[in-house]
Amino acid sequence: MTVPFKQRYFEDYQVGETAEFGDYPITEREIVEFASKYDPQPFHVDPEAGARTIYGGLISSGWMTGSVMMRMLVDHFISPLSSMGSPGIDEVRWHKPVRPGDRLHMRVTILEKRRSESKPDRGVIRVLQEAVNQDGDTVMSFRGMGMYKCRDAAAPG
Amino acid sequence: MTVPFKQRYFEDYQVGETAEFGDYPITEREIVEFASKYDPQPFHVDPEAGARTIYGGLISSGWMTGSVMMRMLVDHFISPLSSMGSPGIDEVRWHKPVRPGDRLHMRVTILEKRRSESKPDRGVIRVLQEAVNQDGDTVMSFRGMGMYKCRDAAAPG
Repeated sequence: MTVPFKQRYFEDYQVGETAEFGDYPITEREIVEFASKYDPQPFHVDPEAGARTIYGGLISSGWMTGSVMMRMLVDHFISPLSSMGSPGIDEVRWHKPVRPGDRLHMRVTILEKRRSESKPDRGVIRVLQEAVNQDGDTVMSFRGMGMYKCRDAAAPG
Repeated sequence: MTVPFKQRYFEDYQVGETAEFGDYPITEREIVEFASKYDPQPFHVDPEAGARTIYGGLISSGWMTGSVMMRMLVDHFISPLSSMGSPGIDEVRWHKPVRPGDRLHMRVTILEKRRSESKPDRGVIRVLQEAVNQDGDTVMSFRGMGMYKCRDAAAPG
């Protein structure tokens, strides 16, 4: 029996597993609000200025798209029973612009898991995280590392 | 004569150059507001719940810290004359927690530059981006790629 993501411990993740979840509508208002605070470049805050760039219109800040991915991961994937946070992520790529009216969901693939030798009560999971739009195109991806507690800290994972 | 960052084109970046800039005070209010929307894990939204975790208190979402870095980069580093956005970033690492009361600034180091062969009017700059706190500790780092227009699209850069 597969343990639901939000109830998992380190032992429950299986390399090769994949799943899709979430549904996040992107609005012009959120793009402009986020970028006004954190990334005020013309193509993120001004639809008319954006139209004159290579992007041809307003697009989401890459940091907003990543934050939206994080929200879907917290809602549907990261287990509050065992998650100890993340030391980092690799190969962050913005493949396609994210525009007002897009709807994003997540696709996750478990790439690797390794129990800590020095701290055997936990382990690191590596997960390919992809944000996919309504056309099935991956708009952003990264490889995330997550530290998770083991259910049974005594037995090998 | 060194061209100010905000007035640069591809040709103006020198490999090995380093600079520090920005001053961003981190508040409990901003940490909680950001995380309530994008990363509602207990140690990002609730000081008391955070105190019971390995972090010992409220800490910034890693995506907020990255967004704060982006704001300082837009204000002081990225040239609106030539920037064409970023295809991605690598080796994102959260080295130390960011807490309410911290003040962050940026340290950038130009690692590499390469003019595009297929599109000789532009080139990619690779930059080590570090967020440094008031104690001089690097709290977050990544290697960013930025696409920049050339001042002289005809001559080799």
